[in-house]
Amino acid sequence: MALSRFEYVKQFEQEDKLLPNAWIVVRIDGKGFHRFCEVHKFAKPNDLDALQLMNMAGMSVMQEFNEIAIGYGQSDEYSFVFRREANVYQRRRDKLVSYVASLFTSAYMFHWHRIFERRSLTIRYPPSFDARTVLYPTDENLRDYLSWRQADVHVNNLYNTTFWNLVASGLSNSDAERELQGTLASDKNEILFSKFGINYNNEPIMYRKGTILLRKPVRVAEGVKRLIVPIFEDLIGDQFWERHPEILDKKVTTTKGAGADAVLELSALDAQPIVSYQLEVLQRKKAGMAQASK
Amino acid sequence: MALSRFEYVKQFEQEDKLLPNAWIVVRIDGKGFHRFCEVHKFAKPNDLDALQLMNMAGMSVMQEFNEIAIGYGQSDEYSFVFRREANVYQRRRDKLVSYVASLFTSAYMFHWHRIFERRSLTIRYPPSFDARTVLYPTDENLRDYLSWRQADVHVNNLYNTTFWNLVASGLSNSDAERELQGTLASDKNEILFSKFGINYNNEPIMYRKGTILLRKPVRVAEGVKRLIVPIFEDLIGDQFWERHPEILDKKVTTTKGAGADAVLELSALDAQPIVSYQLEVLQRKKAGMAQASK
Amino acid sequence: MALSRFEYVKQFEQEDKLLPNAWIVVRIDGKGFHRFCEVHKFAKPNDLDALQLMNMAGMSVMQEFNEIAIGYGQSDEYSFVFRREANVYQRRRDKLVSYVASLFTSAYMFHWHRIFERRSLTIRYPPSFDARTVLYPTDENLRDYLSWRQADVHVNNLYNTTFWNLVASGLSNSDAERELQGTLASDKNEILFSKFGINYNNEPIMYRKGTILLRKPVRVAEGVKRLIVPIFEDLIGDQFWERHPEILDKKVTTTKGAGADAVLELSALDAQPIVSYQLEVLQRKKAGMAQASK
Amino acid sequence: MALSRFEYVKQFEQEDKLLPNAWIVVRIDGKGFHRFCEVHKFAKPNDLDALQLMNMAGMSVMQEFNEIAIGYGQSDEYSFVFRREANVYQRRRDKLVSYVASLFTSAYMFHWHRIFERRSLTIRYPPSFDARTVLYPTDENLRDYLSWRQADVHVNNLYNTTFWNLVASGLSNSDAERELQGTLASDKNEILFSKFGINYNNEPIMYRKGTILLRKPVRVAEGVKRLIVPIFEDLIGDQFWERHPEILDKKVTTTKGAGADAVLELSALDAQPIVSYQLEVLQRKKAGMAQASK
Repeated sequence: MALSRFEYVKQFEQEDKLLPNAWIVVRIDGKGFHRFCEVHKFAKPNDLDALQLMNMAGMSVMQEFNEIAIGYGQSDEYSFVFRREANVYQRRRDKLVSYVASLFTSAYMFHWHRIFERRSLTIRYPPSFDARTVLYPTDENLRDYLSWRQADVHVNNLYNTTFWNLVASGLSNSDAERELQGTLASDKNEILFSKFGINYNNEPIMYRKGTILLRKPVRVAEGVKRLIVPIFEDLIGDQFWERHPEILDKKVTTTKGAGADAVLELSALDAQPIVSYQLEVLQRKKAGMAQASK
Repeated sequence: MALSRFEYVKQFEQEDKLLPNAWIVVRIDGKGFHRFCEVHKFAKPNDLDALQLMNMAGMSVMQEFNEIAIGYGQSDEYSFVFRREANVYQRRRDKLVSYVASLFTSAYMFHWHRIFERRSLTIRYPPSFDARTVLYPTDENLRDYLSWRQADVHVNNLYNTTFWNLVASGLSNSDAERELQGTLASDKNEILFSKFGINYNNEPIMYRKGTILLRKPVRVAEGVKRLIVPIFEDLIGDQFWERHPEILDKKVTTTKGAGADAVLELSALDAQPIVSYQLEVLQRKKAGMAQASK
Repeated sequence: MALSRFEYVKQFEQEDKLLPNAWIVVRIDGKGFHRFCEVHKFAKPNDLDALQLMNMAGMSVMQEFNEIAIGYGQSDEYSFVFRREANVYQRRRDKLVSYVASLFTSAYMFHWHRIFERRSLTIRYPPSFDARTVLYPTDENLRDYLSWRQADVHVNNLYNTTFWNLVASGLSNSDAERELQGTLASDKNEILFSKFGINYNNEPIMYRKGTILLRKPVRVAEGVKRLIVPIFEDLIGDQFWERHPEILDKKVTTTKGAGADAVLELSALDAQPIVSYQLEVLQRKKAGMAQASK
Repeated sequence: MALSRFEYVKQFEQEDKLLPNAWIVVRIDGKGFHRFCEVHKFAKPNDLDALQLMNMAGMSVMQEFNEIAIGYGQSDEYSFVFRREANVYQRRRDKLVSYVASLFTSAYMFHWHRIFERRSLTIRYPPSFDARTVLYPTDENLRDYLSWRQADVHVNNLYNTTFWNLVASGLSNSDAERELQGTLASDKNEILFSKFGINYNNEPIMYRKGTILLRKPVRVAEGVKRLIVPIFEDLIGDQFWERHPEILDKKVTTTKGAGADAVLELSALDAQPIVSYQLEVLQRKKAGMAQASK
């Protein structure tokens, strides 16, 4: 049974290689997550565990591709920024976008139990994500992309925080919606403060700013290790980019030994599931090696 | 915090719409499945459960998209053929290929326990798949694509069956490889028969031909229901296409009431996990409705 | 001066190969031809010479590519249909679309003098054309494309014929426009007939239907030769496709010796500039060979 | 005759928009120019008139698109660099690449007589060009692209100059080829000098470096006018980019009044056909206005 007669069909595969030396952004979006959140009774407007699970999945993607310079997650979406010089899959569009989507999905399900076991929450049906690829030719365009996503979480979270407080206070969903129609940010801040005593700026920063994932040297028991750490900062201003020059600088190698100056302290991080997970894996590896060397 | 200043970055998303009225094939491929099979101790050359799990995932994808005319799985790959007129995601390439990959992955993990609980096999790390999209302008090209994949499983499975029998008989992997170097199909058939008393044509057809998934009317307890059924047939010859004219015929609607003439009998099918799963879901729905109507 | 340091920039060229086995249509459109017609005082609504010049350019393109199955021109546009199996430029999009546009432009200028010398019309500034590529997966889609262009010339030419007759009768342009606003085809036919005694169906068929270019065997002095001939027919109905089966049939080779049955008689054709030009070239070649053999 | 039944075919046109904010290079290449040069008896290795005609065509393209930052021509090719922010044709690939090719071709033919009338050279058959589009994300990539083309003319011209001098000295083409096989640049310089007394660096710079086209303020009789001028310089080193900062700088507007500091003197330029042509057009316009104001 000769393959050869049929093999010509391979020619129909069209290589769609992404432009070299441009930043590649792959953004994952939850499919039908409104319903998924309902079915799984995620808290509103933010479910900390659900967001941490997104972070776990984001971390898994970053572990797979060391060519990712920065990850950024908010709500049911996650963006991964591949360095200009990334050559993953020879920059083939189909393969890259589908693999990132698959890996994110897989990690989301894999880590579900770890995150939700306290709440005895089992997964009711397979969640899914779609993804898209966008190219940015300049560093400025890339920064503006990330700023756009962070401005988006701000606008949405301020709205949602106000909305769900109004609902919690007794308004119907449609009454709350009407109340907020046409309001400015300042109006919503005022409603939160006057009606509910909430200073929006004191809301958890992860909810207000989303989660930035970076590879950073961290001081752990065994010395300094390069870990993927969650960062909660404003990335619209210049300070963020000055503090983390390795994101844009192609001369800063991602695999170099972690310099002492930039080493993060574990204490600030170990409450984060993605950090404790990585530490656990390090421990298991160490134990495995100890075992092996006996 | 105005979105507007940054929103221009949306323009960088390039719509890549797939040519209208062409067949769309999305093919999923396991990433690093050689290792995944090792780690999870899948049987060689074929692990029936692992293949059934692929079929479960294939079924889930077909349930999501009624615009899929036929699914075809073999080894760690699955092809989904979207009808010429399919308008899913407005035929946007990125979204389609990533969503199919994500959904397949998600279903693979979701159904893992159902398939592997007998063997107490837990998933050790997140599996993943990549995907690609290929367009075929004519029915003949599409048939040749599917023939190519089915010829591929034949060639590989004959080789693998012979190889692993040689290894089981005591040869090292490299000796078995050497033994098979340069052999024709007829040689391998002869080795199987003379050394191991195996008539290759009696090997399970699923291993030799892969699994075809079609939507078919099936007679179940409650009457005739449209189910996704696994079909094990040669699809290279014309007979397959004559027996299943609905695949290529755009006039045959996929949602019509199942005609009596073509109704399949359950008895032949219910040993198949994807069929028993669908029946279970039907039962649950019926029970749910009975409950609700009390 | 090593090229090598800079040669990496070649990688940025992205191959954009057109889907195999799909019909390729390249359509040329005049750039700013409204002004070009004004400046060169082309007759309205149709300038026979200007249309014949378009046909000369269309013929030149077809002479260059024997993979063109049919050419179709109307107004300031020309469509060229490349056979499904065409492999010109390895189906590279950029090169194909730019070369066809360049060649058409070049031939348009080259033949200008031949067509317009009677009118002592010289070219005032360089005319130009843009082009686009469209793929059609099925024969039906291709026929519908050509029907669309032929229906377009009908609609426009009926309008323009009525409009310019109204203007010739003394109406201002804007009065004529107002008169025609909201009229149906039947209304325009009626205006033409009642006001100007014109039966639209007797207008020159080239104006009403555009020009179809096909390769056909033609009986000339020297015997039967394959020429590119202008055909003025309705191509929307089935008869056209039955009369010219070689357009869609891939088994009909384009280079075969011209069969006696289908041979066209020269008498019907030699008033057409593209035919008399081809005959002239044949004569020159014959004379050249006679000269050479002396 | 309703268009509507067929209009669906418009959907098959696939928008292929070029990535925003990337440099767009459109490069024109002569099709079969080896033969075209033979037939028209162009001098070898360089025909000054033929190169000036290429420059005339390049100038015409630049006059049409004020979004071109720089043009660069050598041999039978011409590159046009559209600014990052160029929005011509909404950056639609097909239209841009075909229009530039068409316009270049058209201008090449239009100006033929002006350039070649001294030599009584008429055009024998329609010349044509193909074109391609390439995107460059960074200024460095763009500079490297232009350096690549200028290094290419150096390598080719040194070879050709030596080759044709050897042939002129009596060697057959194949003997000259053999003589040059495996030689380095230094060897060719040596052959030129020792055998023919030619110092390669004294060869005309247009032949050695190609022609750069820029828009520059030029002092003419009527004052300072912005003209497209040919520049013959090395563009690989940094000095060129320091002398002409407007090429890369997006803040330098292309339409601003020409600043006194950078004003070029006509004396150095008016021997160039593209400059004398532009001056002639200015004169005609002035005369036309004078006429009109009488």
